Amino acid sequence: MADSKANIGVVGMAVMGKNLALNIESRGFTVGIFNRSASKTEAVMKDHADKNLVPSYSVEDFVNSLETPRRIVMMVKAGKPTDATIDSLLPLLDKGDILIDGGNTNFHNTIERNARLDASGINFIGMGVSGGELGALHGPSLMPGGQEEAYKLVEPVLTQIAAKASDGKPCVAYIGPNGAGHYVKMVHNGIEYGDEQLIDESYDILRNGAGIDIDELADIFKEWNKGELNSYLIEITADILTRKDDLGADKSKPIVDMILDRGANKGTGKWSSEDAMEVGTDQSVITESVYARFISMLKDERLAAAKVLNGPKASDIINDDEKKDLVERVRKALYFGKIMSYAQGFEQLRFASEQYDWNLKFGELAQIWREGCIIRAQFLQNITDAFEKDENLTNLLLDPYFSEIANKYQQDARDVVALATKAGIPVPSLSAAVNYYDSYRAEVLPANLLQAQRDYFGAHTYERTDREGNFHYPWYTEQ
Amino acid sequence: MADSKANIGVVGMAVMGKNLALNIESRGFTVGIFNRSASKTEAVMKDHADKNLVPSYSVEDFVNSLETPRRIVMMVKAGKPTDATIDSLLPLLDKGDILIDGGNTNFHNTIERNARLDASGINFIGMGVSGGELGALHGPSLMPGGQEEAYKLVEPVLTQIAAKASDGKPCVAYIGPNGAGHYVKMVHNGIEYGDEQLIDESYDILRNGAGIDIDELADIFKEWNKGELNSYLIEITADILTRKDDLGADKSKPIVDMILDRGANKGTGKWSSEDAMEVGTDQSVITESVYARFISMLKDERLAAAKVLNGPKASDIINDDEKKDLVERVRKALYFGKIMSYAQGFEQLRFASEQYDWNLKFGELAQIWREGCIIRAQFLQNITDAFEKDENLTNLLLDPYFSEIANKYQQDARDVVALATKAGIPVPSLSAAVNYYDSYRAEVLPANLLQAQRDYFGAHTYERTDREGNFHYPWYTEQ
Repeated sequence: MADSKANIGVVGMAVMGKNLALNIESRGFTVGIFNRSASKTEAVMKDHADKNLVPSYSVEDFVNSLETPRRIVMMVKAGKPTDATIDSLLPLLDKGDILIDGGNTNFHNTIERNARLDASGINFIGMGVSGGELGALHGPSLMPGGQEEAYKLVEPVLTQIAAKASDGKPCVAYIGPNGAGHYVKMVHNGIEYGDEQLIDESYDILRNGAGIDIDELADIFKEWNKGELNSYLIEITADILTRKDDLGADKSKPIVDMILDRGANKGTGKWSSEDAMEVGTDQSVITESVYARFISMLKDERLAAAKVLNGPKASDIINDDEKKDLVERVRKALYFGKIMSYAQGFEQLRFASEQYDWNLKFGELAQIWREGCIIRAQFLQNITDAFEKDENLTNLLLDPYFSEIANKYQQDARDVVALATKAGIPVPSLSAAVNYYDSYRAEVLPANLLQAQRDYFGAHTYERTDREGNFHYPWYTEQ
Repeated sequence: MADSKANIGVVGMAVMGKNLALNIESRGFTVGIFNRSASKTEAVMKDHADKNLVPSYSVEDFVNSLETPRRIVMMVKAGKPTDATIDSLLPLLDKGDILIDGGNTNFHNTIERNARLDASGINFIGMGVSGGELGALHGPSLMPGGQEEAYKLVEPVLTQIAAKASDGKPCVAYIGPNGAGHYVKMVHNGIEYGDEQLIDESYDILRNGAGIDIDELADIFKEWNKGELNSYLIEITADILTRKDDLGADKSKPIVDMILDRGANKGTGKWSSEDAMEVGTDQSVITESVYARFISMLKDERLAAAKVLNGPKASDIINDDEKKDLVERVRKALYFGKIMSYAQGFEQLRFASEQYDWNLKFGELAQIWREGCIIRAQFLQNITDAFEKDENLTNLLLDPYFSEIANKYQQDARDVVALATKAGIPVPSLSAAVNYYDSYRAEVLPANLLQAQRDYFGAHTYERTDREGNFHYPWYTEQ
């Protein structure tokens, strides 16, 4: 009887859900599919009549079409649609069934839902899915968190549908309890914001600062992609710079020059910055990349400001002398910035793991990001290696591989940031990277003065260098 | 009969509540006081037997001791103690009574409590109180938000107890509905973090970078306090630098050198950064100051990192040539940074006012910060003036006074940031200030490349420079 049932179900037949269902089916599973409105399901069945898909047009039929314990992946819009889907399924499920939320859900919601459903005996896995539509179809990076015993029951499916790294390992692993999977996906998205901003600042310095021609720049990024910067985002940037406008009057124009410089965001990137605040870690590179999007949106204000606020002319500052080796210096600054961003991201993950009690395996996280997801990069193997060498590593910058590169590249990173600052080219994330480096390696920070100030105006007390304890200075007594 | 009743009540006899009660009493009001444990109330009565204070030792007696409509200021710890106090008072109150929360409460909680109590006919005012213990006693800056008609009933008291600016105006005004008062206090605290960090970075450059002697530095800050930087925080910094250790073996040592460089925070500063994310504005100067505190806390990690991560020797970079005029250049950079921080703070307030529907009066906010609070400064008058000239001003940088100074000082700010960056001195907030300036005045930002990237990997679409609408480029088609 079990043979006639679908092995797994997917709810939500928008493009992500459809592609994930087709991916699962392509690995030899029978997939039950359901969508709130029947037309989407019908369209999928029309286009894929030859596949082992079992369509249902009521929640009841859908739930009945699945073998038990049921494994149901929800690919619906995060928020109310997720709760509505859970509410419609819940009365029909049996104890031990497994609900998987593959949406871009805030981890706080996942923690709450996991606890609520667990009380009814239903397993709930919050799963980060990265790689976009094509990733969902051909092999995404998957970050599932929830009950570990429930994960074991879906592992055979997830392992097959996930992207495979060059060593053949699937880009999926059990992340941790309740909201851990969605948390790690959130930090992944933050890191993605940071990577993009660092690339965009590098592009800005070279193209708008140094006046390098866009075709030459495309070749530069192509070249960079062959070295330690090798990654999906560098690869597509090189490709983007070669593309011409498809819609305008002049089809020989680069498409980037026809694109309005207003950087949108779908809200998931900011969560990472918000939680860095909550757990108490410096996540400046990513946060500056979020802010860069916000300020880019104020196009009208910026045009008004450009008329009244002065700055240097970049071409006066980035002269022929400065242009010498600038491409290579920017390449080093970019890689340096990337290392700082990931050092911050993994420091945040470490703090979160402790505070939320998740026992995250940091090396494994880097491992499952090597393929399938937007931040996939050769570089991630070095992070895995670092945590394999020392699973208690507190910060990537304390690993020999990363400290060696940081030491080698820090001077170029400084030079590039100083040059851009003098040339009037905004480099918020590259600046944050250098400042993070210099703060992190500072034996003494001016926080001693800060503590004096806080003790002065608010009696907040201070700690001393020569003994333990909290002290208050008699500021209001004349000496 | 009303004559025998107290005019106003204060709950919570810790130092802030006690001082506020004494302040109110000193203006000719009779003040009912209550504390959960009787001993605190008894202690106040013992020390101030001659004052018009009416102590109560039960909530019932306390509520009965007040004239109606009752005005009750709660000065209790934010969070559960606030709810516990509300719960104990609520059954005893009459419609039209006014509860005022003077704690450092998150504005989200104030919005919720205001709505909840309003449904029972009780007015609820969330009031920011700044100025510390001495401010509470002698004249704080007050930021009350809630029902405007309820504010009118407490205005006569608040106006009298608030600090007075040099033009005699009291540092209190009706801020707006529900959580507006606590929101404005939150941004005040964020700005305070930013001011402190900018001062601390300036100190670090001059003392640890340029090697200026601490006594000379104290004089420099004293001098700065006579000019446009004139403010409470500059004033106390000058004083702090003159102070010698009171506890150590060597009493001739500057106290700052005995203070451990771990910058603590009580959590209110981060709220401002979190909500900047929510409303979608760039608040980089303040956020970097919060991060600077976080990273300063990692003292042990930093000491380990200092051993393996290299950087330049500051004295090699900040040579005699660079030292010329450095004090004046840092002064200008500091003022420039302060202007950027406030421009960001008021931009956040503008976005929040729209999104939370508060109708904030920006000029008035600057006005009530001129005295009483930690960020009090001569400079705030210029902000008030700017909004009086143009109440629809979108950003301080578009006001002639501020754009003129920014234009005059931007070169020095760049030079100082570039110098510190090359010298290995972390200047996260000063860097953020320059980057904000350059982003805000940028006609074109590299967000065009960002949008191309987002459209490439996620089909997020892009906008064009030559026509309206959202477009998707055929990236996966070979050209």
